[in-house]
Amino acid sequence: MSVSFCLHPRWLVPVAPAGVLEQHALVVENGRIAAVLPSADARLRYAHLSHRDLPEHVLLPGLVNLHGHSAMTLLRGLADDLALMDWLNHHIWPAEKRHVSDEFVYDGSLLAMAEMLRCGTTTINDMYFHHEAVARAGLTAQMRTVVGCSILEFPTPYAADADAYIERALAAHARFQGEQLVRFTLAPHAPYTVSDATFRRVVQLAGQLDCAIHCHIHETREEVEGSLREHGVRPLARLASLGLLDMPLIAAHCVHLDDAEIALLARHRVGVAHNPSSNLKLASGLARIHDLRQAGVAVGIGTDGAASNNKLDMLAETRLAALLPKVQAADPRAIPATEALRMATLGGAEALGMAAEIGSLEVGKRADLLAVDLSDLATQPCYDPISHLVYAAGREQVSDVWVDGRQVLEQGRHTTLDPQQLKAKAGWWRDRVLADRHTGA
Amino acid sequence: MSVSFCLHPRWLVPVAPAGVLEQHALVVENGRIAAVLPSADARLRYAHLSHRDLPEHVLLPGLVNLHGHSAMTLLRGLADDLALMDWLNHHIWPAEKRHVSDEFVYDGSLLAMAEMLRCGTTTINDMYFHHEAVARAGLTAQMRTVVGCSILEFPTPYAADADAYIERALAAHARFQGEQLVRFTLAPHAPYTVSDATFRRVVQLAGQLDCAIHCHIHETREEVEGSLREHGVRPLARLASLGLLDMPLIAAHCVHLDDAEIALLARHRVGVAHNPSSNLKLASGLARIHDLRQAGVAVGIGTDGAASNNKLDMLAETRLAALLPKVQAADPRAIPATEALRMATLGGAEALGMAAEIGSLEVGKRADLLAVDLSDLATQPCYDPISHLVYAAGREQVSDVWVDGRQVLEQGRHTTLDPQQLKAKAGWWRDRVLADRHTGA
Repeated sequence: MSVSFCLHPRWLVPVAPAGVLEQHALVVENGRIAAVLPSADARLRYAHLSHRDLPEHVLLPGLVNLHGHSAMTLLRGLADDLALMDWLNHHIWPAEKRHVSDEFVYDGSLLAMAEMLRCGTTTINDMYFHHEAVARAGLTAQMRTVVGCSILEFPTPYAADADAYIERALAAHARFQGEQLVRFTLAPHAPYTVSDATFRRVVQLAGQLDCAIHCHIHETREEVEGSLREHGVRPLARLASLGLLDMPLIAAHCVHLDDAEIALLARHRVGVAHNPSSNLKLASGLARIHDLRQAGVAVGIGTDGAASNNKLDMLAETRLAALLPKVQAADPRAIPATEALRMATLGGAEALGMAAEIGSLEVGKRADLLAVDLSDLATQPCYDPISHLVYAAGREQVSDVWVDGRQVLEQGRHTTLDPQQLKAKAGWWRDRVLADRHTGA
Repeated sequence: MSVSFCLHPRWLVPVAPAGVLEQHALVVENGRIAAVLPSADARLRYAHLSHRDLPEHVLLPGLVNLHGHSAMTLLRGLADDLALMDWLNHHIWPAEKRHVSDEFVYDGSLLAMAEMLRCGTTTINDMYFHHEAVARAGLTAQMRTVVGCSILEFPTPYAADADAYIERALAAHARFQGEQLVRFTLAPHAPYTVSDATFRRVVQLAGQLDCAIHCHIHETREEVEGSLREHGVRPLARLASLGLLDMPLIAAHCVHLDDAEIALLARHRVGVAHNPSSNLKLASGLARIHDLRQAGVAVGIGTDGAASNNKLDMLAETRLAALLPKVQAADPRAIPATEALRMATLGGAEALGMAAEIGSLEVGKRADLLAVDLSDLATQPCYDPISHLVYAAGREQVSDVWVDGRQVLEQGRHTTLDPQQLKAKAGWWRDRVLADRHTGA
């Protein structure tokens, strides 16, 4: 199928405007959404295009995964149910130190992208090392990829210090200029791993390069307490004083916020990446998503990395993002299904500053789409397709996915990736990781 | 495949004893587990049986859904994100009053059972009206079905008062005596819908019939406060004084418990049905599962009905049952994967008083089994199959299911049910429910 075609789904959920259209079609021309119109009209006016019926499907904007560490799929399930510092010090960091390389990141990112595309995610806002490997994986998978270039003070095999990370980030950014599917953020890791000087330099560079910043912020209580001890202020206040909040910023987690901080995020139009599974699994806490949305903050949803989730399933995260606020607010009306779906699509696009291009099925936007087949018994009967998308559908019901008008999943099958090959690579890396552990290396 | 056969999975997770066996086989003879032994030995000693390899699968005990209202699948997604009494008064109860019949319950229960079997659930502890219709559905589906006979004071089209519900329960119980797959509980609905006199009669009858009691208990704060107002004590204290806790009892929800109540449940060996999704979606609260388990209470996991969940997916519930306690306890070690899987299987069996028959892969137990195919990219690589079962696998990876040694799901396909027919029925009921709503009936 070319990048110009017409889809006739049973239900069309544009996200913006809100609501469900029936007997409507979506026209894609040259990778962009050219029209949303009654199905009968589309067959007449766009007779020259190929038309496809999606008779039991809902068509919606591609899901935006607002926070992930794709390559960490290769460590999925290596260590669970451990205290955070035990998990990092004795399992994740040693494995990363020993194995993370261009090859590891490319293979791990492709594995993640295969899983994400299969689950209807069309954009990943990533953060990791080996920035070029992530970008190459995005191009191979044909997934919209925002490469977050990790920057921290500590040496890893990838870079010796903050300057070296920044140098590599600048090189990667320059190398992929002009790629439609790839863009970059500068990703200072977190307040507790990055110095004031480095944050200042990141702010300056982000302005020069016209790119956003992506940073873990207020993920744990310990982070907030540590900042109070070391800097005399909470991390957000410190970052505000360093100018970070004046730049386009995606703040990942934001679990521990007081009312003033929520107002601060709203005022500065900071985007928040909500990672419900990861926040539960690592015992970080319950983010105040209902309050953030009430304050008008752009909130998107992320899976985080597979080492702390362990599934890169945006439908599962969206369900949790709708369920958790209800019990927090003691009100079942908090974050209804429509709002959760908006966060998973347009909310993520807004947080990335990409809402003019993606996040809803509006004319002129890039054609990042997914079709979910609701014919499965698990979504029968159907009174409301948005309810089913958020509360009942499973990732396996995602049938077709398009990125930039190109079909990357067709009736559940990848068109850009070879699952058997990815599986073989995953097994190869597993054997290496285990061999090291067993020899105590 | 007959009810005698031998399976050779890549991984075998018996639940009891804990751990993972490799290169082992499970032998089923006449519907019971006859042996768990090294694969090579099994091929020699059981050469006369049919042998099947499950080369990328984990074999485990069938999942026990400890609390559900199967027939409510027909109202799935009819109304979401509403305040509890608005939801009940204006949506669920009117639809139930108008439509619930033998036919509705049979069709809705079959739809639920198809979904549950597809997701690896082999036992459902149900609670609803039209008890015989539920039992018949269980026999049609060949699913292990514990029919909870709802008893309350209020009239419904099914019965006029508590005596009438009890009469129908006794008739249903008598009618299905001797069925291997069907048993009954008496199910007084909840402390706020059942009188002292009726509870007393239920206790007496449960003793005479030698069956357990299944009741919603401490689901909401309002229930506890209402009991204090009306009876001067919290519901559990009232039920204890009425003798309910001296009988085999499955207490559904138990969201609001103090320390003394947890000790009381432990002392009386009350089984607790934990329904994490439903407790979130209805904003009931976070049940103290970690504390209950620490106190030694038998805890199982339930989906609740599809009107308040809205998916009957025990793998999804098990994941949530592992995630939520971590953030409650502020400790990522709370309820590790092994413990969550135990709750979903043996914990449910213990709560039902059926642990001698089901819940683990031990010699002599009924062969309720499921195989999960971990070859999917979403469960690659695999360091630990139990971690993947709980944190990463999706319901679509359930490939094969056996109940009482009979294969009811074969490579993802139902052997006892016709999905197309169930789907047509679901659509038919949907049209009826919607027609009534639109005419304001």
